[in-house]
Amino acid sequence: MCKTHVLSVPSAKATFEKTTIERRELRPDDVLIDIKFSGICHSDIHSAFDEWGGGIFPMVPGHEIAGIVAAVGTEVSKFAVGDRVGVGCFVDSCGECEYCLKGEEQYCTKGFVATYNSLDYDGNPTYGGYSQKIVVTERFVVRIPDSLELNVASPLLCAGITTYSPLKHWNAGSGKKVAIVGVGGLGHLAIQYAHAMGAEVTVLSRSIGKKEEALSFGADHYFATSDPATFKTLASQFDLILNTVSANLDVDAYLSLLRIDGTLVNVGAPAEPDKYQVFSLIMGRRSIAGSLVGGIRETQEMLDFSAEHGIAPKIEVIRADQVDEAYQRVLRSDVRYRFVIDVSTL
Amino acid sequence: MCKTHVLSVPSAKATFEKTTIERRELRPDDVLIDIKFSGICHSDIHSAFDEWGGGIFPMVPGHEIAGIVAAVGTEVSKFAVGDRVGVGCFVDSCGECEYCLKGEEQYCTKGFVATYNSLDYDGNPTYGGYSQKIVVTERFVVRIPDSLELNVASPLLCAGITTYSPLKHWNAGSGKKVAIVGVGGLGHLAIQYAHAMGAEVTVLSRSIGKKEEALSFGADHYFATSDPATFKTLASQFDLILNTVSANLDVDAYLSLLRIDGTLVNVGAPAEPDKYQVFSLIMGRRSIAGSLVGGIRETQEMLDFSAEHGIAPKIEVIRADQVDEAYQRVLRSDVRYRFVIDVSTL
Repeated sequence: MCKTHVLSVPSAKATFEKTTIERRELRPDDVLIDIKFSGICHSDIHSAFDEWGGGIFPMVPGHEIAGIVAAVGTEVSKFAVGDRVGVGCFVDSCGECEYCLKGEEQYCTKGFVATYNSLDYDGNPTYGGYSQKIVVTERFVVRIPDSLELNVASPLLCAGITTYSPLKHWNAGSGKKVAIVGVGGLGHLAIQYAHAMGAEVTVLSRSIGKKEEALSFGADHYFATSDPATFKTLASQFDLILNTVSANLDVDAYLSLLRIDGTLVNVGAPAEPDKYQVFSLIMGRRSIAGSLVGGIRETQEMLDFSAEHGIAPKIEVIRADQVDEAYQRVLRSDVRYRFVIDVSTL
Repeated sequence: MCKTHVLSVPSAKATFEKTTIERRELRPDDVLIDIKFSGICHSDIHSAFDEWGGGIFPMVPGHEIAGIVAAVGTEVSKFAVGDRVGVGCFVDSCGECEYCLKGEEQYCTKGFVATYNSLDYDGNPTYGGYSQKIVVTERFVVRIPDSLELNVASPLLCAGITTYSPLKHWNAGSGKKVAIVGVGGLGHLAIQYAHAMGAEVTVLSRSIGKKEEALSFGADHYFATSDPATFKTLASQFDLILNTVSANLDVDAYLSLLRIDGTLVNVGAPAEPDKYQVFSLIMGRRSIAGSLVGGIRETQEMLDFSAEHGIAPKIEVIRADQVDEAYQRVLRSDVRYRFVIDVSTL
């Protein structure tokens, strides 16, 4: 067992406290990581506020973890002390079902063990990355390429893979017209990935305000969705629309922007149901879909791809005592584009 | 010009009248068809009642047309007098867009010309199959295999292709688990196609009432959706769900029956929007889609496939003076499974 400093919420919507927890003794296949940076994801806020129910308190959020290997179990073969590593949204899965065997652990039939606010297969609660140390089975640890700074790499472990995976799955690439809805923590990465994959990228954002920045991320075109003309101009244009916004959309309006066989993929989930006219799908054999992060193999691929193409989130590094304020700023969309906690300030 | 007897509705929701209309002079690529049978599709009722708006009256419905070639234009090469032929939901398309060139005229960029209640590219209204003769460009005429009776073939021109096309497109076949929702005009054909394609077929119907008949069409399993246990028993089972019902569904409940990457495809469209929780899609990378009939080449393929596999709708042949009553029976779901008008009674 090893004690570590953490930022913990004692109950739903409470403010964060600095405290300590115990991390488990290293098992043969475990890696002990000295966490350097931990990103703040909007889902941390949903969890800490218990908006999805079933929250396990006290809670230590954080699933965008970047750090350095401090010790390894006796059978660890992939990592050595000093390696630069990351951990994302989950820390265990059954390893035996067809999805685990395919490397898509996020769809594990038994249900993956989330990095925090979850129970591991032994029944113990998991605690996340707002913490100075974490112990993780090596199978769920990825390598951070040398050219990526650890603070910049940290948001890639959730926001990066959440956008990279559907763009790959739905074949964004050369000759494809892809629209990215929203320019936030997810959207500003999605633009960079879709562009690097070779697609023609259009950004759809409420106002014209983020145009220059979206173009700097690699967007070819930018349209404000507050302008009704946008939906006429862009009718039947896109092979793929990746919606990174968690608010309810006018789904039919966005479906009308798809070509025949086009797909609207959601990676953010509003609390209320979305609505659509079935005709909007039928008239163009269109689809509405969703996608959940990505598997471990694909997460490594995403990190390597990011390093190769110079893709990085824009981040604001904060101290541990600024997390409550940062949550409020995320809720006001007052961040460009991702907060990262400097864990050394804990 | 050639005069022909028709069944016509003078205005929305009026009863049918026997009257006559003129069919156009044969163009070089036209085929004159002596219609023998014309199926009744639920969309005929929506149109005749003007429930979708924009109805062109007087209206002669009917897009499930089976008959015999009576004359051909000077440049017709595919058909000769005496051939057994069919016409489905559309009678013209631009012929030049990428979808027409791919043989998917139903998604023609210019917009196809529907068999009735539409304007052809010259601006003239089109009149459908509740009629003794029709003139159609040969490109939109298909050949009815000898082993298919004309009355049985007629519903295949809409109900058949509407179910065959999505089953092919989403790869229903050996090793796939396919659910068919609804055992009606569309559903009872979908069961036969999915079975003949080699899929393991489960039928989902409100009550247990149609079980024996569904099994006789080739279903492997049958479950009543009125029994809540059905949704637990079948959780995460299906690669594909084909929904043939036009009423609003509990979309989330049906999505929960899909495997990872599974698709719920709709071929019937309720008037009110459907609702879904985006999480239902995200948690399994699932999709909701729609599909519209099929192209001409695929319609011919579907007829040949039906002949080869002995697939046929169950029909009730009616006289022309029974159409109003038949509409009422369709609205009460009091038909097993498709009405076909014997056009000789006109």
